[in-house]
Amino acid sequence: MEKLDRMDHFANLKTEQRRLSTSSTEVRNSMLVAIAEALVRHAPQIFSANARDLLRADQERLEAPVRKRLVFDMEKLDAVCEGIAQVARLEDPIGKVRERRLLDEGLLLERVSMPIGVIGMVFESRPDALVQILSLCLKSGNAIVLKGGREALDTNRELVKVIREALEPFPVASGWMVHLESREDVQAMLGMDEVIDLLIPRGTNTFVRYVMDHTRIPVLGHADGLCALYIDADAELDLAVRVAVDSKCQYPAVCNAVETLLVHRNIASGFLRAVEPKLAACHVRIHGDETVRSVIACEAATEADWDTEYLGYEIAIKVVDSIDQAIEHIAAHGSGHTDGIVTANAGIARRFLREVDSADVFWNCSTRFADGFRFGLGAEVGVSTQKIHARGPVGLDGLMSSRWLLSGQGQIVADYSGPHPRAFLHKDLPLEGAGLLEERIY
Amino acid sequence: MEKLDRMDHFANLKTEQRRLSTSSTEVRNSMLVAIAEALVRHAPQIFSANARDLLRADQERLEAPVRKRLVFDMEKLDAVCEGIAQVARLEDPIGKVRERRLLDEGLLLERVSMPIGVIGMVFESRPDALVQILSLCLKSGNAIVLKGGREALDTNRELVKVIREALEPFPVASGWMVHLESREDVQAMLGMDEVIDLLIPRGTNTFVRYVMDHTRIPVLGHADGLCALYIDADAELDLAVRVAVDSKCQYPAVCNAVETLLVHRNIASGFLRAVEPKLAACHVRIHGDETVRSVIACEAATEADWDTEYLGYEIAIKVVDSIDQAIEHIAAHGSGHTDGIVTANAGIARRFLREVDSADVFWNCSTRFADGFRFGLGAEVGVSTQKIHARGPVGLDGLMSSRWLLSGQGQIVADYSGPHPRAFLHKDLPLEGAGLLEERIY
Repeated sequence: MEKLDRMDHFANLKTEQRRLSTSSTEVRNSMLVAIAEALVRHAPQIFSANARDLLRADQERLEAPVRKRLVFDMEKLDAVCEGIAQVARLEDPIGKVRERRLLDEGLLLERVSMPIGVIGMVFESRPDALVQILSLCLKSGNAIVLKGGREALDTNRELVKVIREALEPFPVASGWMVHLESREDVQAMLGMDEVIDLLIPRGTNTFVRYVMDHTRIPVLGHADGLCALYIDADAELDLAVRVAVDSKCQYPAVCNAVETLLVHRNIASGFLRAVEPKLAACHVRIHGDETVRSVIACEAATEADWDTEYLGYEIAIKVVDSIDQAIEHIAAHGSGHTDGIVTANAGIARRFLREVDSADVFWNCSTRFADGFRFGLGAEVGVSTQKIHARGPVGLDGLMSSRWLLSGQGQIVADYSGPHPRAFLHKDLPLEGAGLLEERIY
Repeated sequence: MEKLDRMDHFANLKTEQRRLSTSSTEVRNSMLVAIAEALVRHAPQIFSANARDLLRADQERLEAPVRKRLVFDMEKLDAVCEGIAQVARLEDPIGKVRERRLLDEGLLLERVSMPIGVIGMVFESRPDALVQILSLCLKSGNAIVLKGGREALDTNRELVKVIREALEPFPVASGWMVHLESREDVQAMLGMDEVIDLLIPRGTNTFVRYVMDHTRIPVLGHADGLCALYIDADAELDLAVRVAVDSKCQYPAVCNAVETLLVHRNIASGFLRAVEPKLAACHVRIHGDETVRSVIACEAATEADWDTEYLGYEIAIKVVDSIDQAIEHIAAHGSGHTDGIVTANAGIARRFLREVDSADVFWNCSTRFADGFRFGLGAEVGVSTQKIHARGPVGLDGLMSSRWLLSGQGQIVADYSGPHPRAFLHKDLPLEGAGLLEERIY
């Protein structure tokens, strides 16, 4: 069914997005509430769809962590509904005045926040992610074309069905969302640069890289997360060990876990002897350079190790002679995601914060803090290592664009040109107060 | 010479950019002053290089407007030096705190503005643009790979030589700038996604589209500028005519000139009779739909006219029955650049401002105001019709990215996870006051 409807959906997606984005804050929040209520009311049918996905997962012998993410039970439903309630409570991101300037008497310029338009999102087999993404797009007035992992197909289908029914009574309804189901659909999506304004791919780095290489649509995301932690000569030993172990072991399968430790020569011996037993307790395999291996027993690091994102209980350790060497190493081998320094020397720390050009640069804390929730951004739509638009953990703000509105009384450019041009005033005004968009429509 | 140096430049570009971006505000401003002084000191040799370009232009019978842009004389030199002085006076865009949040006691998060990194810029044959672009990149701490139009090659070479010499006494010097000279170099640039973070192509829409289609590097710019002006039923006639004529005729060769007039049926007869002689006085060819031709004499518009960017003294005029039709027409045929409405009805105007999803949406003023200088952005690096990053006229801000800095006292994520997690504080702090980056280095 969804598939047959799809072509119609695409054709109208921009119109539907316009309707959604011009609906009032109250309408969009009521729609969110209606979704949460419908999910609770239809829980049994959602759970039974999920049971079918889980049965197939068992037949296909899916790995335990993947199966775990696939589960959609009462606990996940509660979390999802709490998430929706949080999104409903967030301030409306649409129509916020970001700049306001009087160009001349009676000629008022405003830059106001507006949804990007149509978001294309491909994400892992996590049914709760589907609900979260839809909620964020609804709140921010963006249309969404989404494709979840195939392992969660039955659950996702059921969730989309329930959400569509819940939105039917609203004039805006659910035409702003399109659910894709097949791998071929993803391929088609990459070519839809006339419809989709921004792609957010989540998944393996191979997949994200594939997306980046095969589309003209701007992509927000990150392929690699090769994070380094530099233990400076002036680091406090206990603190350095604690931060290093947490950065590696607290959850090693994710992009913000540390893959490389860079250790200043002056502290190397003490630090390595202290950190080794802690890493051993977590069963971390160490790849060390020659100096490291002269202090602790470990495997020999090859050149490839400095460029490897282990995503598991493995770590590469290198001894450096200076902060300059550490910064150079990160510039040469890092992925611009998250890099940290441990030092009691504020001057050295500032150099690191200034010169390491990564989305997140940390001082005396775990790299694992690099996360939208921990940063206090509310929900996270992804993490970007690109340098334009949003960078690092991306929240609702990353789904917003802006528009320049100019309101006049018949002013023409001819008056401001030629031999006796009228001068502009260019007077910045306070951002408070109702703007040119003070009212909504539907 | 420049060509032989180039490979070295590329290899070091990121290092040189880091040096530039971590230099103090004072150093960068002194470099700007040194450039302006050197340009004045070496004016004779620059003018004589320009004479060679102009001679070639005459031999090749270049069109008058192209030749005019190519001129670099005392007047242009004065303007360029005034421009440099303005850029030097601008607030330093590096290291501004955009968000500041206490995640927990002693765990401070800041989002600070940082240069994007390496900008690739291809621009028209205007030597003054070269100086402007270099000044903006210097001020904002971005490295730049630039390629100007081949007609200006001798002048550009001389300008680059003078600027390099002027910067030699500074520790940062000029390794952050690379000047390309050939068309093959531009092709090579498009493949340099490991080095260049953002491409800004200026020129014909064919050229910009070619760049967008042949690179994985994010592109900031616009291919088309198909702007429409909607004359509503409630428009004041005189004002509508004045705004329409200025939007078309004040300078028709540029992207923010109007190509399509949409006229409400109820005002069509009066408006068309009033605007026709004014357009005729400017020798504007009118392509009208059937209704238009029942009122004034003009050519018949074909379907293709609604999608044509004339960039000259031609205009397409269509009569519509409602604001909805106008909005639909713009959504179907516009390029998302600049669109305007003329109406005395505030409610109708607000609908237009809300529902027309273009970079610039104007009410009762000429579309020709869509420009970085007129908007008060200082210098303009380009105009973007993309929806991510900067949109519309782009000033210095568009050359900036940001970085998340987190400073702690040994905090680890394990303490904020598990069965008894420590709660985050997430307390927003004022943006004023020195941040984590309060000092600079070189």
